[in-house]
Amino acid sequence: MKIVKSTQVMQKEMNLEKTAGKTIGFVPTMGYLHEGHLSLIKQAKEECDIIVVSIFVNPLQFGPNEDFDRYPRDFERDKKLAEEAGADVLFCPETKDMYPEEPVVTVSVNRRVDALCGKTRIGHFDGVATVLTKLFNIVSPNKAFFGMKDAQQVAVVTGLVEDFNIQVEIIGCETKREADGLAMSSRNVYLDENERKEALHLFQSLSRAQDWLLKYDSGDTEQKMIKYLEEHTSGSVEYCKILSYPELLPPTKSDKRLIFAVSVKFNKARLIDNVIIDNMFIKTESEEETCSVH
Amino acid sequence: MKIVKSTQVMQKEMNLEKTAGKTIGFVPTMGYLHEGHLSLIKQAKEECDIIVVSIFVNPLQFGPNEDFDRYPRDFERDKKLAEEAGADVLFCPETKDMYPEEPVVTVSVNRRVDALCGKTRIGHFDGVATVLTKLFNIVSPNKAFFGMKDAQQVAVVTGLVEDFNIQVEIIGCETKREADGLAMSSRNVYLDENERKEALHLFQSLSRAQDWLLKYDSGDTEQKMIKYLEEHTSGSVEYCKILSYPELLPPTKSDKRLIFAVSVKFNKARLIDNVIIDNMFIKTESEEETCSVH
Repeated sequence: MKIVKSTQVMQKEMNLEKTAGKTIGFVPTMGYLHEGHLSLIKQAKEECDIIVVSIFVNPLQFGPNEDFDRYPRDFERDKKLAEEAGADVLFCPETKDMYPEEPVVTVSVNRRVDALCGKTRIGHFDGVATVLTKLFNIVSPNKAFFGMKDAQQVAVVTGLVEDFNIQVEIIGCETKREADGLAMSSRNVYLDENERKEALHLFQSLSRAQDWLLKYDSGDTEQKMIKYLEEHTSGSVEYCKILSYPELLPPTKSDKRLIFAVSVKFNKARLIDNVIIDNMFIKTESEEETCSVH
Repeated sequence: MKIVKSTQVMQKEMNLEKTAGKTIGFVPTMGYLHEGHLSLIKQAKEECDIIVVSIFVNPLQFGPNEDFDRYPRDFERDKKLAEEAGADVLFCPETKDMYPEEPVVTVSVNRRVDALCGKTRIGHFDGVATVLTKLFNIVSPNKAFFGMKDAQQVAVVTGLVEDFNIQVEIIGCETKREADGLAMSSRNVYLDENERKEALHLFQSLSRAQDWLLKYDSGDTEQKMIKYLEEHTSGSVEYCKILSYPELLPPTKSDKRLIFAVSVKFNKARLIDNVIIDNMFIKTESEEETCSVH
């Protein structure tokens, strides 16, 4: 596995690979790799010739009161894990190479951010979209792989590549979970023993909500999710929402795809989780027949 | 000359040219071509294999009270002129292809815009940077050619490609002028006969200002430029500024490159012009020796 630090060298190397007819699969990360990242690398390996993993803790996507300084970092461990999973190039640029000075331009995300994490993490998705615009231009990937745990990020990135005509296919990959259902996250290391046990209820609340939504409207279902999480965890519930996906607007009966999403703040870790359900409101064939008879 | 309307077709065609090893020269325009545009096309022809000219009147870069609807358009004439100047591909996308819906993301320009035209044309350079990000991703040019008449645009675009790591070289080409010095512009057609005569004084004020700056400070020189234009034209002077280039900040003795820039609003046309001067404040060798002696 090659390790590249310079953005210029990376760009040249990737140009050579493209000229040689290779397809490039890209897994952008902030490091501290876990099974979720490794599954993205493995999936990329199945679909592309050259696999690039980037590790860059992007200051632009952290708010002033967020955990940029204490975000977990372990380069040697990441290097070993990325190589074992099949990465060909590990790209780990320095901050001063990515942002040599106050940027003249940044990306502003105008839609899909007034909900879920975007509502409280002001500017977060602007930072994500800005660094990904840069990374896509440096790595020139054919496909880029993202975990669906960060479903709002995937919604924003899909809008980014469509709106800016960036020639990369965005692949949203299924969330990897621990045996009890907890979504894998670099921030899980912040949980104490008790919080770790309670954390499984994020996924539990999402499973139950699908049943509740068959009986109750989305507002009542959200209330039941909040109540469930307040009863089963010591964390503070930041949001429980049911929205259309990827637009992240209040759901209507005609929406084909819905996201159920939760966020809970524990002592040192803010956890998120979601499930995306297709055709929840779509009538089955027999129901439609019944309707047309009446 | 090939005419392409679809963004998707354009992207595929350019990918083929790149794969075949051709270099692409790009001249983005809003149409109503004049000698200035044609000189960009000719310069591109000298430096690249395939020359793409785009014509797209970009709604995002016009303010609500600006001239989007009445911006001059003449496709048949443009087609003829572009072909004669040497264009290989004329790319003229429809608005609904460039902006199929309200964009999820746009580019925000954070620096180099709180001066000159950016001060009054709020959001103009955001629109310019957004459409150019799209066009660069659609056309994949090796070099893009811009007239230095829009020097602030070149400053912004240079920042854009640096900050977003876009693989294109920005070439700022000398302003083309009429025999009496008036900078060529699509908006010159709006001038009446009398205004057309007065308009030469924009360039005159820039020439005089270089002499004035040898005797007066930049603030006084700006005042003299304003007075000169008020005396010699019937238009209203929007700005006369001397700034560092490309940062567009108040000049200091250590600035190697200065821009002298003016804007005058006539009845139906707002005209701009500028000159860029290198090493205005740099001491000659003999002066430096004198200094070091004292």
